[in-house]
Amino acid sequence: MADDVRPPAIITLTTDFGNGSRYVAAMKGVILSINSRAQIVDISHAVPPRDIRAGAIALAETACWFPPGTVHVVVVDPGVGSKRRIIYAEMCGQHFIGPDNGVLSRLAIAQRPVKMFCVDDPQYWNREVSRTFHGRDIMSPVAARLSLGLAPEKLGPPIQQLVELQWAEVQQVPNRIAGEVIEVDSFGNLITNITRAMLAGVPRGDSVIITCQEHETQGIFATFGDQPPMTFMAHVGSTGRLELAVVDENASAMLGIKVGAPVCVSW
Amino acid sequence: MADDVRPPAIITLTTDFGNGSRYVAAMKGVILSINSRAQIVDISHAVPPRDIRAGAIALAETACWFPPGTVHVVVVDPGVGSKRRIIYAEMCGQHFIGPDNGVLSRLAIAQRPVKMFCVDDPQYWNREVSRTFHGRDIMSPVAARLSLGLAPEKLGPPIQQLVELQWAEVQQVPNRIAGEVIEVDSFGNLITNITRAMLAGVPRGDSVIITCQEHETQGIFATFGDQPPMTFMAHVGSTGRLELAVVDENASAMLGIKVGAPVCVSW
Amino acid sequence: MADDVRPPAIITLTTDFGNGSRYVAAMKGVILSINSRAQIVDISHAVPPRDIRAGAIALAETACWFPPGTVHVVVVDPGVGSKRRIIYAEMCGQHFIGPDNGVLSRLAIAQRPVKMFCVDDPQYWNREVSRTFHGRDIMSPVAARLSLGLAPEKLGPPIQQLVELQWAEVQQVPNRIAGEVIEVDSFGNLITNITRAMLAGVPRGDSVIITCQEHETQGIFATFGDQPPMTFMAHVGSTGRLELAVVDENASAMLGIKVGAPVCVSW
Repeated sequence: MADDVRPPAIITLTTDFGNGSRYVAAMKGVILSINSRAQIVDISHAVPPRDIRAGAIALAETACWFPPGTVHVVVVDPGVGSKRRIIYAEMCGQHFIGPDNGVLSRLAIAQRPVKMFCVDDPQYWNREVSRTFHGRDIMSPVAARLSLGLAPEKLGPPIQQLVELQWAEVQQVPNRIAGEVIEVDSFGNLITNITRAMLAGVPRGDSVIITCQEHETQGIFATFGDQPPMTFMAHVGSTGRLELAVVDENASAMLGIKVGAPVCVSW
Repeated sequence: MADDVRPPAIITLTTDFGNGSRYVAAMKGVILSINSRAQIVDISHAVPPRDIRAGAIALAETACWFPPGTVHVVVVDPGVGSKRRIIYAEMCGQHFIGPDNGVLSRLAIAQRPVKMFCVDDPQYWNREVSRTFHGRDIMSPVAARLSLGLAPEKLGPPIQQLVELQWAEVQQVPNRIAGEVIEVDSFGNLITNITRAMLAGVPRGDSVIITCQEHETQGIFATFGDQPPMTFMAHVGSTGRLELAVVDENASAMLGIKVGAPVCVSW
Repeated sequence: MADDVRPPAIITLTTDFGNGSRYVAAMKGVILSINSRAQIVDISHAVPPRDIRAGAIALAETACWFPPGTVHVVVVDPGVGSKRRIIYAEMCGQHFIGPDNGVLSRLAIAQRPVKMFCVDDPQYWNREVSRTFHGRDIMSPVAARLSLGLAPEKLGPPIQQLVELQWAEVQQVPNRIAGEVIEVDSFGNLITNITRAMLAGVPRGDSVIITCQEHETQGIFATFGDQPPMTFMAHVGSTGRLELAVVDENASAMLGIKVGAPVCVSW
């Protein structure tokens, strides 16, 4: 198939480099130097610095919206230059490259990897490799070559296991589910680790009480508009998880609630 | 015409999701899953949360720079999940999709829509539609399909009227024009609702006085360089509107002037 | 060669407009109206307002990662509308457009320009040119036309000299190198003007002492992982320069060190 009729390869980038970081641009330059037809999409560069868990969540919640064949590069890599491996994983028909520090592991809980390789053959990397920027010198060129059709098997030897992170488990007992806030979005909405499936048997009316720190609300609603402005309320959000919000306001800022805050649903 | 020789379709995104939001990335994934050749351009994701007026201004000031056929998606949508409609409008040879909350209406004052439809046929949407993220589940797939040539008529029934916002009108009396600051840019420049056309009969020299709150300056200049650093000055800016600035400084921060501040030109 | 088989032209943008600025989007609209196949990449829009030196550094450190033929547009242009020229330079097989205020000059120290022209023929500009936004009205259309193959010679008359900035020189005397911090990255790492080459004869062990303001560390390491968390340490970073960091922390914020702080290496 001629190069010009092949659909453009999509490569996504997720980093903790910050909005407007020139480090991101260097990665894009490396990718485009190898595959000038790559379609590069930023998932987020606003992952808090060195926050592997936040990077893992951003990736896990977003990757599934991309088409099969997409190559995802994740550079939240505080251990760069140490002995941590760089790994490749194929999940849900897509390709993932990142440090083996757990940043790929949250997605891997839901989407069991069908192939995993250690990225250790330098022939697919930049000729010179710095000790502190493997995103640019190893992961970007590998992603660009995968987008051109390189077989992942060539990247290095297969691995069986990736480093996993410990995530707080949701406690489910009769009439009570206890979880926590795992993410605060840019509106200040509080996204929890309690999924729609866990809420299947929970009544929707006033008899269900949701608490977070000293704040309490009754009922689980379908959307913000079901409650008046300034109301603290619970609903199942667009990621299929229980979310807490203050209608038309920033719940995190108003109530002082952050990632890790305990959330309890009882009825 | 073969798919590979058709010029790539351009889709722009304007949201209040914040820089680096993974919600934006989910929309891009949905679009690229339907049209992998779409050229996606961010107009801005820094619209203040739920600020429909700011979103309307960002869109109205920017859309005209894009080529005919561009598909613009605007997601400043505090009423998501309520009964507000999602609408399509064709204006200046381009396509616009957004909630019917006024966010498209500012552009529609200048560029009368030639077609408007209610977006209500779910066959062009994501199979599952959340109650709180229609940007991802309805507007993005519709935009991607328009970019592939879907006729807008298929989206839903025609509508005659879109929801409009009230904008402060500029008062023009002999020797006096009274308007207000409608936008503060990233340099802290104060952009007003007073247009070049309104200023046609106004003298350019020292006899014209411009006031904003307790601050006053004389003369309307052509560019910053016409006045020395640290000077509070007025000029007609790149959007064809009267702007107030402090040369080489952030006027908004220095003078404490925000959106809505009254501006008076007298001579 | 047919348009559809030519590799897509890459155009990068570097500005001080701020993340999420609609001014950037207007530039992209202008470019895509002329060349809808352009692949536009943001280098950074987070250059501090009017900071020509920061823009010059961002460009100089990043451009080299892009492929030959890339067109780079730099709009850090506090003198817009004054008599400063807009210039074109060809360096390292790539094209550069920017105001002649020094923003291209840092790259030009390392990569001597092979051609330089004054951009002054309005036939390649927007039909209407504002006095305050030449990025949109002159530089973007010129960049788009270069990306379509316009010969740079057509832009205007050749020039011999571009405006240069004064940069603090690194002082090298026996057993002592004195430089300064020239950039703080989003992790708070302190990037200096002391290059790997300058450090060639410097011992790597504890006998070398690096000071910055009242802070001191021993040894130059290869990567962060070579020292424990919370340690103030020196290493040669991914840009080939001496960097100071606090392992796993924000050195700039913790130690109150900013751009311009003196850095001394002695042994």
